[in-house]
Amino acid sequence: MLEALKEKVCHANLQLVSHGLVLFTWGNVSAIDSETRLVVIKPSGISYDHMKPEDMVVLDLDGNVVEGKWRPSSDTPTHLELYKAYPQIGGIVHTHSTYATAFAQAGRDIPAYGTTHADYFYGDIPCARRLTKEEVEGAYEKNTGLVMIETLGDRNPMEVPAMLTTSHGPFVWGKDADEAVYHAVVLEEVARMSLLTEQINPQATPADKYLLDKHYLRKHGKNAYYGQK
Amino acid sequence: MLEALKEKVCHANLQLVSHGLVLFTWGNVSAIDSETRLVVIKPSGISYDHMKPEDMVVLDLDGNVVEGKWRPSSDTPTHLELYKAYPQIGGIVHTHSTYATAFAQAGRDIPAYGTTHADYFYGDIPCARRLTKEEVEGAYEKNTGLVMIETLGDRNPMEVPAMLTTSHGPFVWGKDADEAVYHAVVLEEVARMSLLTEQINPQATPADKYLLDKHYLRKHGKNAYYGQK
Amino acid sequence: MLEALKEKVCHANLQLVSHGLVLFTWGNVSAIDSETRLVVIKPSGISYDHMKPEDMVVLDLDGNVVEGKWRPSSDTPTHLELYKAYPQIGGIVHTHSTYATAFAQAGRDIPAYGTTHADYFYGDIPCARRLTKEEVEGAYEKNTGLVMIETLGDRNPMEVPAMLTTSHGPFVWGKDADEAVYHAVVLEEVARMSLLTEQINPQATPADKYLLDKHYLRKHGKNAYYGQK
Amino acid sequence: MLEALKEKVCHANLQLVSHGLVLFTWGNVSAIDSETRLVVIKPSGISYDHMKPEDMVVLDLDGNVVEGKWRPSSDTPTHLELYKAYPQIGGIVHTHSTYATAFAQAGRDIPAYGTTHADYFYGDIPCARRLTKEEVEGAYEKNTGLVMIETLGDRNPMEVPAMLTTSHGPFVWGKDADEAVYHAVVLEEVARMSLLTEQINPQATPADKYLLDKHYLRKHGKNAYYGQK
Repeated sequence: MLEALKEKVCHANLQLVSHGLVLFTWGNVSAIDSETRLVVIKPSGISYDHMKPEDMVVLDLDGNVVEGKWRPSSDTPTHLELYKAYPQIGGIVHTHSTYATAFAQAGRDIPAYGTTHADYFYGDIPCARRLTKEEVEGAYEKNTGLVMIETLGDRNPMEVPAMLTTSHGPFVWGKDADEAVYHAVVLEEVARMSLLTEQINPQATPADKYLLDKHYLRKHGKNAYYGQK
Repeated sequence: MLEALKEKVCHANLQLVSHGLVLFTWGNVSAIDSETRLVVIKPSGISYDHMKPEDMVVLDLDGNVVEGKWRPSSDTPTHLELYKAYPQIGGIVHTHSTYATAFAQAGRDIPAYGTTHADYFYGDIPCARRLTKEEVEGAYEKNTGLVMIETLGDRNPMEVPAMLTTSHGPFVWGKDADEAVYHAVVLEEVARMSLLTEQINPQATPADKYLLDKHYLRKHGKNAYYGQK
Repeated sequence: MLEALKEKVCHANLQLVSHGLVLFTWGNVSAIDSETRLVVIKPSGISYDHMKPEDMVVLDLDGNVVEGKWRPSSDTPTHLELYKAYPQIGGIVHTHSTYATAFAQAGRDIPAYGTTHADYFYGDIPCARRLTKEEVEGAYEKNTGLVMIETLGDRNPMEVPAMLTTSHGPFVWGKDADEAVYHAVVLEEVARMSLLTEQINPQATPADKYLLDKHYLRKHGKNAYYGQK
Repeated sequence: MLEALKEKVCHANLQLVSHGLVLFTWGNVSAIDSETRLVVIKPSGISYDHMKPEDMVVLDLDGNVVEGKWRPSSDTPTHLELYKAYPQIGGIVHTHSTYATAFAQAGRDIPAYGTTHADYFYGDIPCARRLTKEEVEGAYEKNTGLVMIETLGDRNPMEVPAMLTTSHGPFVWGKDADEAVYHAVVLEEVARMSLLTEQINPQATPADKYLLDKHYLRKHGKNAYYGQK
């Protein structure tokens, strides 16, 4: 079932490796089928070296495994909460990519210092609040999702397609698995540039709001003019 | 038309990838034909993976597309302003390369700390002033070029073949597309070394003027003695 | 003798190269045979380029060479002390990997800033105390091992499978040579992320104890639920 | 003439590329023939892509070209001064490798923070004093060599096989071209680790003298016990 989607999700997971975002079995990508609302996700702790589409696990939004010979990623409940809260999201990525994770460990939002950021993220990339002891010792992975949703508040998830989880790392999304991976690559580069910006000028300020608007809106929305029609 | 130049521009765009200066579709290279004054530039938002010379777009200096099946790079008006102001320029590159972009986001000139810099850039590499709200909301890409020209003032563009645009990234040029790419690689390395220099010694000062002159002039101008005759 | 183990140790040494942890002949991996308590280790100062399983040296725990045409790694006495003190250890790695070595040169423990760390290391990764003049001028390599054992104190070496030696570099271990190499890769990434975390936020604090516990224990021990059963 | 040495020097130049120490045509390696005291060096400004042994230039110690179709590296007079002052030197390398150059631009010696340094360099790696206006405007490249010799003073060049030139970059040497390249790779890594050490601990101090002695002397001199006999 969902053969095409399993192939896409498997391929997207392998893209994490070729983009240098993961070591060993770290990281995971999922995608949701818009019709059946079934989720396809990477199995837990499986090496990327011989991963095939048939290794992907299929679940419903309640977390019941519908198909698959492996256990799903231990972060699955986090993915499911995001899909339930935001029907616009089609794919989700979790990595421990170096610079984005360092921002998460530092507990800081990533400031919008320039147009590289604004081409994909509308405003600062938020770092979710720290989980409480109860949230960690309870349904930890599910609560990780809920705290991100709380942190995002009334911002549009498609305009802020990434968030950091304090002391942990980034979750990133998009309209499908490929776009989520793309955003994960951009996030890592933007995080790196942000640190460098502050090292070059400790008094650096975010870019002017009108410049960020210009760049975000020339690529997104009905007046976009970047790329081919 | 301009088949040889389209091939050169296509090749120069692909060089940005192999030198690690761009991710995905970021960045663009153009060149101008000295006889016809027509400009060849990369199409907007097209992947480098299968880019061919026939995908390049040909425009006149007023921005009219003369040939090409794609829309030209959204940064085209910036390139055109530079070509119009400086007839000596034969090729232009725009990237979001990591360290040069971080200097642009920090809003700082790159100081001439050493001979690696002086071998190619005569003096500090300037960061253009911040664009006003009107300039961004008006003809943004054209104004980006005009503000660079304003910032360069009476310096010789061939002696300062790169500039940073605040909160955005570098524009780099040369006598042709290949030299512009070469300068973009040097710029990125020089930006990186400059930050490291300040981290190693926060009191670091630019190199002595007489040393910078020596290095620049042993490679450029009529008394140059670097390389083969 | 011990052909299978020599092959594993040779392969683990070559993994140091492919993971970018060593330059030239730097670094060494050993493993111990659980039945005979014989140790297999890389020869001293031999290039990785043509290293074969038959180049490995076999010693007993007193340091007597039992088999091998080469001299063993000059760090052999350090490995032997660790094997003698901790029967649970099956493999040991020594490298001069960049970030871990910088922490060792800085004489600092690596703080547990996040879950990447907690997935493999239970608590801070300690930096062993500085050796005295007598310890260095005496049986230096043996004393390096003894000081690590002293520093580890009553912590479980399998829960803290790495230690830094002041002004020198990391020693890393695991249940076998492969796991030791795996931990050496994680250590290097964790060290890098720790420095970046402090650069992004000089007031950064270690992650909450309950979060570190959660991550360590979901991968290790009888209630682990990460990976496949 | 000197065919074997030309092949070695050509190969050593190409090693600079594969070790990531140079961009484009930057950097150069030379070697001296111990019998004839003739020097073989890379030609000036020639690409590494198609460099062959027959492109190498042969000179005597007075700088007269004895054989070769190209002009020698513009840094040749620096190499010649070092060969004339130190008959023990058999090969010399000049690069603009990133971290070593950043230390040169910062005008700082590289402190001996650890054993990675002490395994190859006995004590701090000095940064030569700044050249005067007269020295730069006169026989610049020759004076670069003379100032290094002045800075080295009565230290043994084989125990300190590298030096930084202020605002410029490193010169590195060894008993032959291969060893000089090896030392250039170590220098770059040691420079990088030194900066990181200071970033991790701004109060970091050089390693204890007795530890540095131990490491240098276990690899060098008559009581060395590292490597194979």
